[in-house]
Parts: sequence; structure tokens; C-alpha cells
Amino acid sequence: MIGKTIQPEIAELIERRDLGTVREVLLDWHPGELAELIADLPNKDQAVVFRILPRHLAADTFEYMDLDMQMQFLKELGQKEVASILNEMAADDRTAMLEELPGPVVAKLLDLLTPDERKIAQTLLGYPEDSVGRLMSPYYIAVRMEWTVQNVFEHLRNKARHNEALDMIYVVDEKGRLIDDIKLHSFVLAQLDHSVDSLMDRSFISLPVSARKEEAVRIFRKYDRTALPVIDAQQYLVGMVTVDDVIDVLEETDTEDIQKFGGMEALELPYTSTPLWQMVRKRAGWLVVLFLSEMLTATAMGYFEGEIARAVVLALFVPLIISSGGNSGSQAATLTIRAMALGEITLSDWWNVMKRELGAGVLLGMILGCIGFLRISSWSMFSDIYGPHWLLLALTVAISLVGVVLWGTLSGSMLPFILRRLGFDPAASSAPFVATLCDVTGLVIYFVIAALVLHGTLL
Amino acid sequence: MIGKTIQPEIAELIERRDLGTVREVLLDWHPGELAELIADLPNKDQAVVFRILPRHLAADTFEYMDLDMQMQFLKELGQKEVASILNEMAADDRTAMLEELPGPVVAKLLDLLTPDERKIAQTLLGYPEDSVGRLMSPYYIAVRMEWTVQNVFEHLRNKARHNEALDMIYVVDEKGRLIDDIKLHSFVLAQLDHSVDSLMDRSFISLPVSARKEEAVRIFRKYDRTALPVIDAQQYLVGMVTVDDVIDVLEETDTEDIQKFGGMEALELPYTSTPLWQMVRKRAGWLVVLFLSEMLTATAMGYFEGEIARAVVLALFVPLIISSGGNSGSQAATLTIRAMALGEITLSDWWNVMKRELGAGVLLGMILGCIGFLRISSWSMFSDIYGPHWLLLALTVAISLVGVVLWGTLSGSMLPFILRRLGFDPAASSAPFVATLCDVTGLVIYFVIAALVLHGTLL
Repeated sequence: MIGKTIQPEIAELIERRDLGTVREVLLDWHPGELAELIADLPNKDQAVVFRILPRHLAADTFEYMDLDMQMQFLKELGQKEVASILNEMAADDRTAMLEELPGPVVAKLLDLLTPDERKIAQTLLGYPEDSVGRLMSPYYIAVRMEWTVQNVFEHLRNKARHNEALDMIYVVDEKGRLIDDIKLHSFVLAQLDHSVDSLMDRSFISLPVSARKEEAVRIFRKYDRTALPVIDAQQYLVGMVTVDDVIDVLEETDTEDIQKFGGMEALELPYTSTPLWQMVRKRAGWLVVLFLSEMLTATAMGYFEGEIARAVVLALFVPLIISSGGNSGSQAATLTIRAMALGEITLSDWWNVMKRELGAGVLLGMILGCIGFLRISSWSMFSDIYGPHWLLLALTVAISLVGVVLWGTLSGSMLPFILRRLGFDPAASSAPFVATLCDVTGLVIYFVIAALVLHGTLL
Repeated sequence: MIGKTIQPEIAELIERRDLGTVREVLLDWHPGELAELIADLPNKDQAVVFRILPRHLAADTFEYMDLDMQMQFLKELGQKEVASILNEMAADDRTAMLEELPGPVVAKLLDLLTPDERKIAQTLLGYPEDSVGRLMSPYYIAVRMEWTVQNVFEHLRNKARHNEALDMIYVVDEKGRLIDDIKLHSFVLAQLDHSVDSLMDRSFISLPVSARKEEAVRIFRKYDRTALPVIDAQQYLVGMVTVDDVIDVLEETDTEDIQKFGGMEALELPYTSTPLWQMVRKRAGWLVVLFLSEMLTATAMGYFEGEIARAVVLALFVPLIISSGGNSGSQAATLTIRAMALGEITLSDWWNVMKRELGAGVLLGMILGCIGFLRISSWSMFSDIYGPHWLLLALTVAISLVGVVLWGTLSGSMLPFILRRLGFDPAASSAPFVATLCDVTGLVIYFVIAALVLHGTLL
């Protein structure tokens, strides 16, 4: 915000190569704003401005850049500059960046780290891709229960680095096992000569290092914390996850769910930085699968070719009827998938959901059925377009709509349950997937009802 | 988690009415776990367990319950108990609850608050529904720059209440205007006789009280904070927003976007607590609009009735072709809507997006076109189902697919831009909406291409 208003002035200073003044102005800026400013600058000035920042500020700014920008800077900066930035970065942000890069690049970058930082990076990278281990930072503060509050403050003065959250202090036993968490403000409110022991309640929440990131999000939401300690299988304190990383996980998983629901593989990068061929690949996969399944409609229609030839008027309502099934199905699927993602419903709720959707499906089907009936019968008052048997035709369409909408609602709501039961991601039961399923079955429902109602008249 | 394992034992203790032991056990529990435990108990035991909790713990537990449960308890508990719980609740959580209740109930509950708490609740409720004002808590810590660190600690001991975040201390001038924010741990690391002034850098991030909640989420993400101060138009410090409320806003807006994208109005309550009639109403609206629009397909098909009568085989591919447009359109719409929500693209990027989608649309269309062509020609090798002009038919289907997929991709990606430009929510360009649009236009594309290619043979 501040960045936007004085950016023209900064651009002018850069133009005049008055870098001393630029540096002075930028020293007061937040790294997030600096990253935005640099992204908005013309290409040729980006590295210039980045280079005049003090080392620590440069590293912080680098963390706020998007992956594209980071890659570009890694290429443009010298080896020494890269090493200094990497070593200054917060461990969890560095891991997040390294994860996105191709293997050989990661190896090269790891090489630039100091032995200490390399050890941290390798530890973090050793955990499975979607685990809490990848999310954690090693810069927590751990104290011992025998210490006094005074000792804790001295320890803080020595250990406090970067801007990692220090709002929680963790108490470990002599082996390094986590035994309690205490808020920093409890120490502030305590006497200096009191022991840590006297502040302890021995009740704490922790994350297992092997838990999935989504589980971490759930626990953060449940306990309203800003940071949580991470422990391994033997209860050893191995790291800390902060809420800012949890927000990123949340946005990322929601984006994945939304893209899957839109009928495609989730992108790995933001839309604007995904190369065209990669995006086409991610989209083509599902599109082809859906296309092949949708070919069944041609087969189904072929089966009813005789009926269509005898009563062409039947073909007119095919898109209307099958799309109604798809629409009601995608509503039901959305509701179920999101309720599952938020933990509002679990696998065992399938029967309750089915009962609800049965009711909703019948009601919605009847609403659309009535409208369809009225449409055909009112048109037939003024024209002969639907022939002498318009009433039977209207009846066919109305009954089909109830059946198709009910089927759409039920299959849309049950498909996520089936997918989850089989171990797949429920979000894969996308709107286009449900629509395709409803198209094929909708056709069968429509023509069977037509055969029953119109037998002896049109057919 | 802990809750689940010993719940049978607790159920047994309750059964035996050994409430003293139950109380002792529960005293160590986290309010979030208590809320879960109570929700899992049989109805008749819920109020029993809730009543034995100490007042403060009861209020905290109440905050963690879902709205349904809260309503039930408000009904079942006596006026005095309700008053005590309401007065103990954190101000922002109370506002969130009051917002969801019908007007007369809110008025009755406000009446139960102490004058102080009522003033806070009314202030918070006075801001627009989607503003930062509704989200903020009044329990921030404000200090003056003339104070010493010692003074700040004394102030903290007097003011610290509830579990609100105290990680940031705000510095205000003599009129109460915000002039800086300082981390609590900076005070811990400073000498007791130093002045607040000496810790200040006069650079801070704040939220305007009238800003939209989504804007608050964006700023939290950008600056990685756990709490931010809220100021009014005159720079006066009026509250503080904590990151746990931001996470709730994030989940809520993502849920709304997802439900809208699924082709319905967003629900106000979780899926499981939305009454059936309300859910049907939320879904019927869009379903009817889509149905009425989809009726244009019947009109369009009616226009081509002559062609269908002459070449019934054309009707067989109608669902296949129009659904391909809908599927590619819903992919493009998903990508655009999500990228907009994350701020990756803005209105001014429409031309870049259009260029990308033009490329993607042509490529995807050609992939499906080839498959369609191969399908029809290979079937025709072995059967006579598509007649003597199968090659021309295959060509018609292939060309139509390129046209329809390209149209789907372009309209799916541009519709969110158009909606936003007109001031609507881009997420309203849902998968079913895009599919319907593509159905109608897809039919026209298909039959026009058929007329051109098949003129003189089939038509």
C-alpha cells in the first residue's frame, strides 16, 4: 500500500542511479512490500535494487517473492550472494522453496549452505512431502524445568534470532522430550527468581512430525494457537510450526480442491506462472477421460435411434434433461466435498446425507418438472410445434426431470463418499465428472420413461 | 484426540452420577476437547456435564461449540447462567455468535450483559457485516512512549485477561492514536528502566476498521503476523484482529466460493445444520435459472429439427459435443476464479489470460477432435452404424469439437472477468452456469458446421 504511492519517486531515483537515497528509503520498508516493489520494477532494475539491500533484509525480501522471481534471482545473482541469502532465510521458507525446485538445482543449492544450515535443510527435506516435518522450523525456544525465569530470559537473549514466533516457550526434560508449553507472557508476569517448574501445568498440544499437513491445519483451528511444537515418535521436541505456514497450507489445499472440482489435476504453480504445455497436460488428462466416458452417450443415443427417428421431437429435450441432472449433481457434490474437507461429515454419515439428498432431490426435481410441464403445455396452446400428443410429451419430460434430478442429487452426493472409501480424494468427483455420469444415465432414464408414456402414440 | 480414548470412562462416571470425579478429570481438558466431548454425549447428559464446569471454563467451552449447540444451551440454561457465560466469552467470538442469531434473540442476550460488555458488543455489532470491525477484539494492550519497560510489565499484570494474544504491544500517543507496534519479546530482551520510546521504530502495519474481512486476510498473509491493530479513520486504535479469526474468515470465504462455483447460493450454516427447506431454496434458485436458460437448447434444437429428421445420426453426438464445451469451460472458469481470489490476476490481466486460454483451447480442442475423429472412423470400419458418409460425419464432429472446446475455454475464462467488471462475484460464473452457456452455443456451432460440411450429402 505504502509501496504503491511512492513507487514513481523510487523509479525516478533508480533512473538517476541515486542508489544511496534509494537504499535509505527502502531500509524502513517491510520485506513483503519490498518484494512487491521489486516485482513491479522493470526487469533491468530488479537485481540493482535487490543488491543494495543489507544482507538480512535481502534474505527476508527473498522469502516473500514468488517462486518464479526466486528462480530468476538465483540465476542472476553470484554464487556468494546466493549462499548468503540461503543461509539467512528462515528454515521453513527455505524448505518450501527447495521442494519446488528440480532435484539437481536443490543439490547445488544445498551445497552453498553452511554445514549447520545444510543439516537443518536436509532434516526438513527428509520428511514425506505432505508431512508436518516439511512445515516445521527448528528455531523454537526450549528450556528446562529447573531453570529460573531469569535463566529463561538470558537464554532468550542468546537464542532469539530471525523473526520466528517466540510467543511460546517449550519445556523439555533432560533427554529433550517435550513436557510442557508456556506462553511468553506468563514469564513476563512471573517473578524473576521463580522456577520454570512453578509455571507449568503439564498440559500441552503438539503435532506428530509425521502427521499430514491437513491434520496440522485441523489442530491449529481447533485450539486457536499461533504456534505448535512438533514431536517425533519418542516424544522428542524436533521443531515448531507457526500459523503463517498453516495459512499457506490452507490456501494451497483449498486451491487444489477447487481445481480438482473444476475437473482437472491441481496445478503445482500459480496459474500465471504455469507453462502453457504443462497446463494443457493437467487439463487434457481429465478432459480426455470425460470425453471417452461421454462417448457412452453416443452409444446410448444410438440404442434409441429408432425412437428418435419416429419422434424427432424427443431429441429436442435431450440437452435440457441431461443438463438438469448434471447441475443438481454438481450442487450435491460441492456440498458433500466441502463438508468433508471441513470435517463436518465423515464416512459414517453417508446414510444421513443420503436421506437429506433424497428429500432435496425429490423437491428440486418436482420444481423443475412443473416448470418443464408448463413450458411445453403453454407453448402448445399457441403453436403446433410439439404435435397432437403434446400433453403426453409434457408428461414424459416432467417425469424424466424428477427422475434425472433425483438421480443427479443422489449420485453427486454419494460419489465423494465412494471415492473416499476407496482411498481417493473426494474432490476428484468434480462437477464435470458428475455431469458426465448424469448425462449417460439421464439419457437412459429419459428414453425409458418416453417408451413407457408414449407407447402406442408417438412411439 | 485425548477426549476420544477416555470418553467411555467418563460416560460411565456420568452414568453413576459421580460428578465430583468427572469435574476433576475435566478440569485439565482443553475447552476445544470439552466442546467435542459434550457434543458426543447423549442429549440428557450434555447440560449436566456443562453445568459442573467452573464458570470461566464453561464460557471457553461454549465458544468452541457450533452454533446449533450454542442455541440449544442458551435455551436450556437459566438466565443467570447464560448471563455469566456471555460475559465471560471473548468479545470477537460473542460477536460472531450474535451475528448468526435472529434480531429479537440478540436484543434479549444483549440485555443479559453487564453495561461494560454490552457496550463492547454493541460497538462491534455496529460495523458493517463484512468489515474488520466485526472481527476485532477490544482486548489489546496499549502503552505510551514515555513509559519504562517496567511500567509496561506492571500494566500487563493489570490488564492481561482471557487468552487473547499479547504477543504485540501497541504504542499510542496522548490522544490514543496508534504510533507503533512492538513485540512482547522485545520488552523481555530490554532493560527494565529503558523507555518504550527506545524500542520504537515507528513502522507498523494496521487494518482500517472499515476494510473488508477479505482485505484483512490478504494483509495477514502478506506480513505473516499473528495479530494486527485496527484503527479508525482518525488513526485511533480501536481494536485488534487475531490470526485465529482470520483463519475462520479464510475457510468461510473459500466455502462460499466453492458453493457458488458448484452452482448454488452459499449456505449460511454448515451443511449438516442447514434445514432442508432452506437448502432446497438456496439450490432451487440457480437450478431454475439454469433450467430456464437451458430451455434455449430446446429452441435451438427445434430450429434444426429439419436437419435432425433428415440425419438422425447427427442427434447422437449432441450430448458428447456440448458437454465437451462445458467441461473445458468449467476448467477455465475454475482457474480464473481461483487465481482472482488469490490475487494472482486482476481485471487488467484479461488480455493475458485470453491469449493463454486461446492457446490452451486450440490445443485441447485438437486433442478431443482427433479422438472423436478416430472413434467414428474406426467404428465405421467394422459396422455400418454411421452410414456411407461416415468420413464427412467424423470431420463434422472433429471440427465442431475444436470450435466448441475453444469457445468453452474462452467463455469460461472471460466470464469471471465480465462478472467482476460488472460488480458481481466472479465465483458466480459456476461450472453449471458455464456449462449451460456452452450447451446453447455448442449446439449452434455443431449444426452450423454440420450444415457446411454435410451440405449436398446427408443434409
